Amino acid sequence: MDDRVRAHAETLVDWSARIDRDDQVVVTVGEGTHDLAVAVADALGERRATPVFTYASDEVERAYLLAAGEDVADPDHTLALYEKADAVLALRGGRNTAEGSDVPGPTRAAHARANQAVREARMATAWVSTAHPTHALAQQAGMSYEAYRDFAYGAILRDWEALAEEMGRLKALLDEADSVRIVSGETDLRMSITNRTAVNSAASVAYGSHNLPSGEVFTAPVTDSVEGQVRFDLPIVHDGQEIREAFLRFEDGEVVDHDADIGASVLADLLETDPGARRLGELGIGMNRGIDRVTGNLLFDEKMAGTVHLALGRAYDDCLPPGEPGNESAVHVDLLVDMRGGSRLGIDGEVVQRNGIFRWDAGLNG
Amino acid sequence: MDDRVRAHAETLVDWSARIDRDDQVVVTVGEGTHDLAVAVADALGERRATPVFTYASDEVERAYLLAAGEDVADPDHTLALYEKADAVLALRGGRNTAEGSDVPGPTRAAHARANQAVREARMATAWVSTAHPTHALAQQAGMSYEAYRDFAYGAILRDWEALAEEMGRLKALLDEADSVRIVSGETDLRMSITNRTAVNSAASVAYGSHNLPSGEVFTAPVTDSVEGQVRFDLPIVHDGQEIREAFLRFEDGEVVDHDADIGASVLADLLETDPGARRLGELGIGMNRGIDRVTGNLLFDEKMAGTVHLALGRAYDDCLPPGEPGNESAVHVDLLVDMRGGSRLGIDGEVVQRNGIFRWDAGLNG
Repeated sequence: MDDRVRAHAETLVDWSARIDRDDQVVVTVGEGTHDLAVAVADALGERRATPVFTYASDEVERAYLLAAGEDVADPDHTLALYEKADAVLALRGGRNTAEGSDVPGPTRAAHARANQAVREARMATAWVSTAHPTHALAQQAGMSYEAYRDFAYGAILRDWEALAEEMGRLKALLDEADSVRIVSGETDLRMSITNRTAVNSAASVAYGSHNLPSGEVFTAPVTDSVEGQVRFDLPIVHDGQEIREAFLRFEDGEVVDHDADIGASVLADLLETDPGARRLGELGIGMNRGIDRVTGNLLFDEKMAGTVHLALGRAYDDCLPPGEPGNESAVHVDLLVDMRGGSRLGIDGEVVQRNGIFRWDAGLNG
Repeated sequence: MDDRVRAHAETLVDWSARIDRDDQVVVTVGEGTHDLAVAVADALGERRATPVFTYASDEVERAYLLAAGEDVADPDHTLALYEKADAVLALRGGRNTAEGSDVPGPTRAAHARANQAVREARMATAWVSTAHPTHALAQQAGMSYEAYRDFAYGAILRDWEALAEEMGRLKALLDEADSVRIVSGETDLRMSITNRTAVNSAASVAYGSHNLPSGEVFTAPVTDSVEGQVRFDLPIVHDGQEIREAFLRFEDGEVVDHDADIGASVLADLLETDPGARRLGELGIGMNRGIDRVTGNLLFDEKMAGTVHLALGRAYDDCLPPGEPGNESAVHVDLLVDMRGGSRLGIDGEVVQRNGIFRWDAGLNG
């Protein structure tokens, strides 16, 4: 076994999920993630945790959903499992990232409703989602399998403690700040973040972070405050459909103009979901220097150093003042801006990042 | 997908487990059984049952057990899952039938104890174990993959209704009978089956049968009544170790002499497990004509037409008069006798099978 698979499992179990002796753990084994599952089983055994392994296959799920249609029932047995779990480790991978592409939206929505309680029970645990490099993910990234594995482990096996400290500096700035301005090419967007709390997403539940890799600092804008325009010059895939060069113009926090080079109608449909889908729920700043390109997998893409992302839709409760609901929506879709050239990120009128490089990094002068 | 995979899934769901609308189903997906899992998901969706898929990998289990050793805890989350389940479909397969060969016995025993409540909850459901033909099972059988698939589906895709009717005739004879005699080569064994109830194991929970394929009629001998000797001339694999040409001599129901050409010490250790391991818990008569050879997989071997098997150890409650405990033991190990040549099976002094052919089959005269 590649030593990096073992290191990945240990990082997941110790740094990310903080597994303790006697923890009841659900390990979700995606297709193509068997080797990581073996390493995770070994790590959980060493720590005397008690695992059960579930099988997460897009092909199996598709077969079930196409046969059942919208007539799906609540999985009470699965709910009982998650209600008894202390931690959930989701090993994502897959053999075909397009496997779910022909499941009708209403079927998927009915399934999501039936699994609402399961999802909430899962979110109440120390849950972490990670990705094992598979051939399908390499293909999605347009990379050879060997190069993709190097890329993935470069993103996953980091000095998380050091990055947490660095990201803590940005979090401290954001927590004290009233306003943020993002400038890059056609983009010039301003928003208030008064009274918001940023999350130092350092790939550990101890930091309120549930992704491995992570490496971003995110907060929630005051929704009515967003003004200006933004060109999302990095591509994303939403429900299996690509959106490229999306453009949004905001007035009083709401999208008043929109377009995209590819996927304009996908974007338009998304904005029509509900009123909250026309407002921003998240401002995220990528800080993971192990990620130097987009690979079509948001788990990695949104963490890329030198990018910011803005999410249409739902805000995270953790970022909001107690009792304030924040932006509400059925969706949360991240869109990415490349900040590595002709760009600056300002906080309360001071430039803290220029061309993707923070002012505390070597070589940056104001 | 091979049409036989779909037919297998439909037989499993409809004939074997009798899945109804809204049943909460646990599907245990063994390594290498993905294609059957897809077909089962489709069949469960059609019937509007609610599945969850667990992952059963010998390699994952081995990694956990070797790391945890005997210090394993009860899996409360898994127990909660099985307590809420109406049915459990175990899709067995695997990539290496020897994967568990280096897990120490005491570790395996500790794990079995920790999973006792889970096992009982599972047995309280409409559970069925089946096998998907994998390369590892073909190798174990000494067959090409194509030939093995033909063999496996020949055993699985039968006219179960017709076989259930045929096996019902043998069950009726056994239920009324007082004694059985098995004669074949060196074998001459007599036992009482007074007041026992035979199980017509027709691969369906409706018949008290939990295996697909099945095709056997089995009962429990009166343990003290077993007299004579038996040569088990078909090989079996017990805990990864082969036993060939085992020989047992019984007096007052107990083994008083034993030997084997291969695995004599395995047999000796087995007999030392506990007092019940020296007595018989089961007499089974194979009736599945789709199985014409032993393949090293007891799920198939013990169902082979023209064989009988005798199990050292635990008797099945279903065969015993109410309130009678029957033979008790921590083990239940089936050993096989080939009845296809120079053999006869007598019930209450009448020969009902000669050279593997029942008297109601064409060509048999008394």
